[in-house]
Amino acid sequence: MHILIIGAAGMVGRKLTQKLVAEGGLAERAIDALTLVDVVEPDAPAGFTGKVTRLTADLSDAGTAEKLIATRPDVIYHLAAIVSGEAELDFEKGYRINLDGTRALFEAIRLAQAVDGYRPRVVFASSIAVVGAPLPFPIPDDFHTTPLTSYGTQKAMSELLLADYSRRGFFDGIGIRLPTVCIRPGKPNKAASGFFSNILREPLIGQEAVLPVPESIRHWHASPRSAVGFMLHAATIDVDLVGPRRNLSMPGLSATVGEQIEALRRIAGDKAVNLIRREPDPMIIRMCEGWAPGFEATRARELGFTAESSFDEIIRVHVEDELGGQL
Amino acid sequence: MHILIIGAAGMVGRKLTQKLVAEGGLAERAIDALTLVDVVEPDAPAGFTGKVTRLTADLSDAGTAEKLIATRPDVIYHLAAIVSGEAELDFEKGYRINLDGTRALFEAIRLAQAVDGYRPRVVFASSIAVVGAPLPFPIPDDFHTTPLTSYGTQKAMSELLLADYSRRGFFDGIGIRLPTVCIRPGKPNKAASGFFSNILREPLIGQEAVLPVPESIRHWHASPRSAVGFMLHAATIDVDLVGPRRNLSMPGLSATVGEQIEALRRIAGDKAVNLIRREPDPMIIRMCEGWAPGFEATRARELGFTAESSFDEIIRVHVEDELGGQL
Repeated sequence: MHILIIGAAGMVGRKLTQKLVAEGGLAERAIDALTLVDVVEPDAPAGFTGKVTRLTADLSDAGTAEKLIATRPDVIYHLAAIVSGEAELDFEKGYRINLDGTRALFEAIRLAQAVDGYRPRVVFASSIAVVGAPLPFPIPDDFHTTPLTSYGTQKAMSELLLADYSRRGFFDGIGIRLPTVCIRPGKPNKAASGFFSNILREPLIGQEAVLPVPESIRHWHASPRSAVGFMLHAATIDVDLVGPRRNLSMPGLSATVGEQIEALRRIAGDKAVNLIRREPDPMIIRMCEGWAPGFEATRARELGFTAESSFDEIIRVHVEDELGGQL
Repeated sequence: MHILIIGAAGMVGRKLTQKLVAEGGLAERAIDALTLVDVVEPDAPAGFTGKVTRLTADLSDAGTAEKLIATRPDVIYHLAAIVSGEAELDFEKGYRINLDGTRALFEAIRLAQAVDGYRPRVVFASSIAVVGAPLPFPIPDDFHTTPLTSYGTQKAMSELLLADYSRRGFFDGIGIRLPTVCIRPGKPNKAASGFFSNILREPLIGQEAVLPVPESIRHWHASPRSAVGFMLHAATIDVDLVGPRRNLSMPGLSATVGEQIEALRRIAGDKAVNLIRREPDPMIIRMCEGWAPGFEATRARELGFTAESSFDEIIRVHVEDELGGQL
């Protein structure tokens, strides 16, 4: 089978590529071709013996989607997006990339179907940003999408498109509302939500991290490994079991910052915890208060999606996958 | 003030125009100009002494939105849409008119603001079709939008845009989720939901009507007079009270077909009721079962939107407004 990953150079895209190569197949079908696309050239996957095509392209450019669909991939992962902060700063770019790019992809598939009956599986990375405060805890599966960012709006609109194109039979789509991915590997970045990862990742390697919010802040997390697991499961799940409601709030772990820190203490001791420096940032605190504290995710769990059940586990996944299993 | 009505030739558009002319103003500001737009030429409003501009235009055509915004109307009613059945039959046309047309309007306003700070009130006619079965009864305000038609998808996407453009301050938008308008004046039409009106309107003038569903079917109704009332209130309501959740499920009356018929009996007697011919239609029955049985509409009621509280009242409104007050 042929798998197309749009947004392959991002963190989830890279880990998904590695996992697909390691598995060698999806649902007992061998993967013989991978097409990796991003606005920067994706890395060549190590150890893959099938055909690899790496493309630098912007889905929102005219003709890009048609070109990607021309080879009729069996499974399409659409992970490409500009992030929340950028979509808020650049209104036009956000709508162009996050909405028009997605629609161009869906349209290219629809028009391909008219030619030869093409009907791929489409897995779309949505976000918990589709909901907006005030929020209950836990947030039920049937809670409305009233985003408070342009990014969340673009994701919620794309979800609606995905469900309608799926209902009309143009493709078999699954929208995955990803929790905040924690512990995000790499260096601290400027994302307002970066501290959720920073306060664990940096102390685990003996470095200081800044905590800008009170320990009482509650948020919704899943490991990169779980995020990749969602992607694999979404590509093989029986869409008839899902029905017309194709956008699923993924399972995750609801935890306060204090609970994150206590898990760090259990795994890496006081020495690690003492590396967290408290520097309250009123702007980040205000933003945090609008973020999702956690979801019921009942449907996704019933459909077989799984995530971590403790922050200790999330930290151990990071130690295994990023630190070679050793502290 | 200058009021623009896009979709002015439709049933709600015509009644809204008449009401605005009769009132002469909105929130104590006199109306001195009306621009009436539709794909067929709107009628000239009788008795209006201000400036009237009537245009035949399609909002989804390039340049139309910019042209409409060039005169900087203070209040914009966006009622234009192709209906559910047509949007389902013609996928491309539905998205072009109902989504792209709406977006073109919103974009034209945003770009006008960049020129001179323009910030109108925008009242958008959405629909209860943004929700889809299975549905609770009553449907709470925070229930998710999982439409089962392309029309409902286009309306739900437009709602998201309206909320985001309002949040960013490009205009002050209010989305109005209209109940099924009953009793719809005029002749029986081919809409699948037409029978809700037909079984009252025709017997009231001594003519037969066909009932294709069982009396147990429950649905959500408001009179044309209430629909116009929602439009007036939405144009003058304090948007700060509404907050960022700009799309409101309007109040209405939840009634079964049996309750509709009993109201008809109380007002027009057995003779009228006996004109209803039962001809079960399995396709319409199946469609009906997916339709909204009724909403809580708590927020809209708290914000001052009102509708009828009995079907007797809905019938009396029809008798007053369409039959000169006499049976």
